[in-house]
Amino acid sequence: MNETRIEAVTTHLFQVPLPQVMVDAKHGAHTHFELVTVTVRTASGLEGTGYTYTGGKGGHAIRAVVEHDLAPFLTGKDAAEIDAIYEGMWWHIHYVGRGGITSFAMSAVDIALWDLRGKREGRALWQMAGGAGSMAKIYRGGIDLNYSLDELLASIEGYLAAGFTAIKIKIGKDDLEEDVERIRAVRHLIGPDTPFMVDANYALAVPSAIAAAKAFKPFDLLWFEEPTIPDDYAGYAEIAEATGVPLAMGENLHTIHEFEYALAQSKLSFIQPDASNCGGVTGFLRVAELSRRANIPVCSHGMQELHVSLIAAQANAGWVEAHSFDIDQYTTRPLQLRQGFAVAPDAPGTGVEFDWAKLEAHRVA
Amino acid sequence: MNETRIEAVTTHLFQVPLPQVMVDAKHGAHTHFELVTVTVRTASGLEGTGYTYTGGKGGHAIRAVVEHDLAPFLTGKDAAEIDAIYEGMWWHIHYVGRGGITSFAMSAVDIALWDLRGKREGRALWQMAGGAGSMAKIYRGGIDLNYSLDELLASIEGYLAAGFTAIKIKIGKDDLEEDVERIRAVRHLIGPDTPFMVDANYALAVPSAIAAAKAFKPFDLLWFEEPTIPDDYAGYAEIAEATGVPLAMGENLHTIHEFEYALAQSKLSFIQPDASNCGGVTGFLRVAELSRRANIPVCSHGMQELHVSLIAAQANAGWVEAHSFDIDQYTTRPLQLRQGFAVAPDAPGTGVEFDWAKLEAHRVA
Ligand SMILES: [Mg+2]
Ligand SMILES: [Mg+2]
Repeated sequence: MNETRIEAVTTHLFQVPLPQVMVDAKHGAHTHFELVTVTVRTASGLEGTGYTYTGGKGGHAIRAVVEHDLAPFLTGKDAAEIDAIYEGMWWHIHYVGRGGITSFAMSAVDIALWDLRGKREGRALWQMAGGAGSMAKIYRGGIDLNYSLDELLASIEGYLAAGFTAIKIKIGKDDLEEDVERIRAVRHLIGPDTPFMVDANYALAVPSAIAAAKAFKPFDLLWFEEPTIPDDYAGYAEIAEATGVPLAMGENLHTIHEFEYALAQSKLSFIQPDASNCGGVTGFLRVAELSRRANIPVCSHGMQELHVSLIAAQANAGWVEAHSFDIDQYTTRPLQLRQGFAVAPDAPGTGVEFDWAKLEAHRVA
Repeated sequence: MNETRIEAVTTHLFQVPLPQVMVDAKHGAHTHFELVTVTVRTASGLEGTGYTYTGGKGGHAIRAVVEHDLAPFLTGKDAAEIDAIYEGMWWHIHYVGRGGITSFAMSAVDIALWDLRGKREGRALWQMAGGAGSMAKIYRGGIDLNYSLDELLASIEGYLAAGFTAIKIKIGKDDLEEDVERIRAVRHLIGPDTPFMVDANYALAVPSAIAAAKAFKPFDLLWFEEPTIPDDYAGYAEIAEATGVPLAMGENLHTIHEFEYALAQSKLSFIQPDASNCGGVTGFLRVAELSRRANIPVCSHGMQELHVSLIAAQANAGWVEAHSFDIDQYTTRPLQLRQGFAVAPDAPGTGVEFDWAKLEAHRVA
């Protein structure tokens, strides 16, 4: 392993302002996103870069886990042994781990190792991750609960003009009737054939979620995302059984155990892992495998520039979310659409190369 | 709330060397523990201090969550509104939270608020936390898997000489027969009437745990702690049902949801929350309430100098663990034993005042 011996691990934190303040039902106002990058250099001189992101909190802590707890563990190990490093990291920080901050930190490291692997082997991520294809269905997800109805409709017209052919909006207004009015107006705007999802960011108790799902039924939603808290696996099943509305969740599940429970108990129609917080490419592919056994499509949350490859590669590919945190705009290859589909990069590695010069103004650590 | 308005939050990280290297089945060798302190000052000038600890990893990240994510949130809030602050912190860092590092950070803050409350009201923690009593059963828990049999027995003679009347050892040797021999020798040394527990630190798969529990039956163990991973709620029930051996766990559960699942599904005989990682005093008391509904005793893990008050105060008090991380030796009132019981401090607040001068040599941030 001389060539693939890990020699150095460097990590940075960026706080990147959003073009406008964005609000959802539970996280309040987003003014920027945090990006934590991890670059791993091996003895051959090759470098791989991974990353994770947050909605504005926890970035310093994620970077601290990488710098103080993972970098010393990684140095000297064989970067080619991705599974062994994944298991090793899990147990190394287990006492403060099993979800939360450490999942984000492990994810960034793991993505860097896959970037290295692809560069070593001359293979693109979509090839390494399953190879089923290199294009994926994609929808644009707004963080738009604070928009007036006019602003909401204008934002969606913008998404359609940009080439998106499927749309998701936030719901979770204090008054269910207001949510229904917004959904009705959007469905009217986009027509009956455009795939349309809503996302409550777990703002509702189970009975309210059931009432909401029933009220949304006339609008033919592709899914109702995170109606209630991610911890309540049985609550999801209750909502699904009471309403027949297809449910989706996963962006707040961080361990394979949480995904196992959700897939076994929650009667989901779609699962939405995010490689930035469920263990990187390794963690994502383990969830994708579980989703095939559960016979439901695997979708993604956030960082579209990476997930396009991971989703396209799966035999049971669902939808990539084009998230409002536009990390892809800080890379050398922003998201590419072709006839409504997202196109995975063919470059060796993850295909995500940061525009470091553009990011530099936002670096805080 | 003028007087109780939070004016400042300060946090420090200490890395405190252990008197000797300590090994358990899953964390490997411990050379020091990390202590993260949080001091909250209100407008009246009153200060309260809380803290959390780790086995050596994650301390920088915990401190970063307090400094960058919680301190800005707390400043200006009413320190007397402990429940509201607890809920507020939970949602503030939810996306990177729900366990792990953020649970440790929230715990330290919450303990500081209870310290402030006690100082304001002139009440001791055991009075605020339920008031059932001020003394608690206690056992000494070794981290001793690396000790030779002779060293193990010598360590236990030391515990008995120091006044402890109940003992726990680590198990999880590669060869079950070796575990059995150590248990046999310890039981022989301490006699049939001394309460005796073992702790596998979740090293075993369920079938191995069942085999181990059966092999341990002749030795009348009070409990078998963490035979398998904390995520496998049903696995615990399988072990309990197959063997009838009383099981204990909880030190690796961080959210009220995890405790609900464990209490509902795992057929535990004892639950062991740790206020340093399950949400401080507030989180601990919520678990204690659940344990009464489940009709099992509530025990504790680690930081005996604080848990003595929390356990003594409960109507369903179980056992305090006198942990090998001797945080109490860095306070102005190290653990006090009386006739084998631990005595809670009567001082207003948590009764845990750090010896800052003694700690200073170990401060790293
Ligand atoms: Mg969502
Ligand atoms: Mg233990």
